[in-house]
Amino acid sequence: MTNIENLYAIILAGGSGTRLWPLSRELYPKHLLKLPNHDTLFKTTVKRLKKFVPASNLVFSTNTKLASDIRLQLTELDNYNYNLITEPDVKNTAPAIALSVLYIIKKLSANNSDPLILIIPSDHVINDEQKFEEAIQKGVRLAEKGHIVTFGVKPQKLDTGYGYIIAEESNVAKFKEKPDLEEAKKLIEQENCYWNCGIYLFRASIFLHELEKYSKETIDILKSCEFSDEMPTVPYQCYKDVPEISIDHAVMEHSQNIALIPLECGWQDVGSWEELHELVEKDSNNNFIQGDVIDLESENSFIYGTSKLISTIGLKNTVIIETEDAILACDKNRTEDVKQIFGLLKNRNDLTSQVHKTVYRPWGFFTVIQEGEGYKIKIIQVNPGAKLSLQMHHRRSEHWVILAGEALVTRYEEVHSLKPGESIDIPLQAKHMLHNPGKSELRIIEVQNGEYLEEDDIVRFEDIYGRVT
Amino acid sequence: MTNIENLYAIILAGGSGTRLWPLSRELYPKHLLKLPNHDTLFKTTVKRLKKFVPASNLVFSTNTKLASDIRLQLTELDNYNYNLITEPDVKNTAPAIALSVLYIIKKLSANNSDPLILIIPSDHVINDEQKFEEAIQKGVRLAEKGHIVTFGVKPQKLDTGYGYIIAEESNVAKFKEKPDLEEAKKLIEQENCYWNCGIYLFRASIFLHELEKYSKETIDILKSCEFSDEMPTVPYQCYKDVPEISIDHAVMEHSQNIALIPLECGWQDVGSWEELHELVEKDSNNNFIQGDVIDLESENSFIYGTSKLISTIGLKNTVIIETEDAILACDKNRTEDVKQIFGLLKNRNDLTSQVHKTVYRPWGFFTVIQEGEGYKIKIIQVNPGAKLSLQMHHRRSEHWVILAGEALVTRYEEVHSLKPGESIDIPLQAKHMLHNPGKSELRIIEVQNGEYLEEDDIVRFEDIYGRVT
Repeated sequence: MTNIENLYAIILAGGSGTRLWPLSRELYPKHLLKLPNHDTLFKTTVKRLKKFVPASNLVFSTNTKLASDIRLQLTELDNYNYNLITEPDVKNTAPAIALSVLYIIKKLSANNSDPLILIIPSDHVINDEQKFEEAIQKGVRLAEKGHIVTFGVKPQKLDTGYGYIIAEESNVAKFKEKPDLEEAKKLIEQENCYWNCGIYLFRASIFLHELEKYSKETIDILKSCEFSDEMPTVPYQCYKDVPEISIDHAVMEHSQNIALIPLECGWQDVGSWEELHELVEKDSNNNFIQGDVIDLESENSFIYGTSKLISTIGLKNTVIIETEDAILACDKNRTEDVKQIFGLLKNRNDLTSQVHKTVYRPWGFFTVIQEGEGYKIKIIQVNPGAKLSLQMHHRRSEHWVILAGEALVTRYEEVHSLKPGESIDIPLQAKHMLHNPGKSELRIIEVQNGEYLEEDDIVRFEDIYGRVT
Repeated sequence: MTNIENLYAIILAGGSGTRLWPLSRELYPKHLLKLPNHDTLFKTTVKRLKKFVPASNLVFSTNTKLASDIRLQLTELDNYNYNLITEPDVKNTAPAIALSVLYIIKKLSANNSDPLILIIPSDHVINDEQKFEEAIQKGVRLAEKGHIVTFGVKPQKLDTGYGYIIAEESNVAKFKEKPDLEEAKKLIEQENCYWNCGIYLFRASIFLHELEKYSKETIDILKSCEFSDEMPTVPYQCYKDVPEISIDHAVMEHSQNIALIPLECGWQDVGSWEELHELVEKDSNNNFIQGDVIDLESENSFIYGTSKLISTIGLKNTVIIETEDAILACDKNRTEDVKQIFGLLKNRNDLTSQVHKTVYRPWGFFTVIQEGEGYKIKIIQVNPGAKLSLQMHHRRSEHWVILAGEALVTRYEEVHSLKPGESIDIPLQAKHMLHNPGKSELRIIEVQNGEYLEEDDIVRFEDIYGRVT
């Protein structure tokens, strides 16, 4: 398929990861996960779009917390310098989409003041890409005529978690708010009823017109925010007052100008472990098993390990997920309740809801491999050429042992070059910096000693990633 | 209860740990485990016996692989210097018991050439200690009359894993070999049928007479072995030819001189996770839950975590056990099959069948917290006053960071005194030694670098635990 003229795409890549916990985390949501037998849903979405949208017309909408992970996955795809719009605060989809639409008009489509824009989430599965592209083509023709085009899928089950759309004559459609169970039962029996899967296509001018009509405050505030060129982003002081509202509530449920294209391309939301179990290839006992697993006669189960040996005996209809720091063992009919666990963890301020033990940074990543009274041990990996900030800690000394690669360590005013097996002490309050000058990964062990060992004991003096405050 | 005159006890503390895997391991069997809500079964056995057997009359029978862990638990109980007989090879119960009987006669009971000896496994639960002691008192009277006394419990379920004993008139009893299912069904319906729980009481002379009669080779070889005073043990070259045979096959199934005392003292074998679930206190949903667990509406389950967060949702009749390096998830009706998993692991030579990540040594313990290409990271804890051997490695350098306590490090000819936060490099082939001169535990991080990082790359020059070969 060739590029569609004047088409831009806004890929929604914010969102939080509650439903596939413990594999997804608040700071590592579903679309960033490498799913069993799949690439990440985010990368798959990008690859799918690049077949008919030029890379320079792709705009990624994310937030400051996820930006470095999104950038990492884009770098893994290719080295193209994509447009990555970073919300300075997490609002809902209406402000996120409007911000990117304004960015496209102001910065990208100078020669075409009214471009066509496709809005697409990055956490869905689409099996038949050909049919998906055909639907988009049809959508383009309707959007050119001035409609806000929505793409609907036939309901796959009784579910109150989706928005519903009722198709009326000649593509005209009406949005329903999320129904209760009784209403959902009636809706899914209707021939002309569809799930809203959050994919939209419109002319910029039409969308902005409808937004102004139904959510004037949103567009007024956003128009007053100036884009900084670098990230790009808008100032937090400006953005913080934008209403937190979904695109459905802000526009779609009110607009009289909605057209619907049915999607029949094997669309799936992958909203639970049960749905993922349905998606993946299974063995003769209907099990999906990945990791270092020894199973005796389990059935219809999803068993996924990342680090430890897992032995399963006679399980039925069960989900076992093991990650570096958390384990889920769940009746497969109850995987919706993972949300509840996530909520409980958030309430007790448990980090296992927010991050993995491995945390990605612009320069690479670190993994906390053990902590105890007065000490914490990390493995740190620094990408070729990357540099941590010039920094200092008030309450801990650090001790580094090089495992692989080459390190340039600044300590006070001196620079030391270190090889695997060599080591250096970083005393309390010593200004220091770690730099990988080589062409391969630098890996070190860091042993921290001190009475307070949290990430916020850091004074940054210089940082090539703009993190000096 | 006061001491019973001339009574010795042999505590059987060998055995391997298959059935409570992954908590038990080949080198860390069931009796050494700290069970949920319990002390270790081994320590409980010792404490129970000390009420009527003087400490100097307690003899522990174990093997070289388990000896240091047994010694550690005895030290934790008190500082008494117990008699610990170490088999130089793992045989079955007949040689182990006979070796300890000979030791008692030759070394301990000089003034009493024919002592009474109680044989007792160290991995059983006994709830009513008063009734247990009363049964032993009755047994003493029968043993004094010249019987080999066995203690039987009424069968608790249909089980082919036990030996059965049929009581005949006036305490006389007959052993049955382990029955098949059909025979077991008939046996447990008999009023006079008991399980053999492996507890025996006899005069030394009577036992040796019966052993000579029914397993002459065993006693002949053992009589020819000279005890070394230090461990104490006998030479491997002598012991290796002893037949590998259980006390039941060697003596009990043949002897015409068996008397039976029924045990009604809440005896339990704790042979599976299911049996342990029955034993422990449970919540209102009949769950036993220990560790960092968040549960939503599970029922009748045993959930035990040691290191990670475990979240369970809607499980029924399920066992989840999490240890540092392995997880078991098992239908509670199938916990007998853990043996199979253990066998599979042994076949694939998986260390998770043999050891925990934490390995105990005479000087303390170490835990491997991570390993990767070219490196291995351990936390090492050295007991107060303890010293590792003076040693050297051909293929790895080591790097130590002190986490807690005080270290005296010998490197080449120099001795360095190090405090928490300080560190030292041990180059390839450098003679070195780690010593804790302090009164509290010494804890260090060891980072090993090299292409070969196994425990057998060690040359020992001096060792206070006699490990220089």
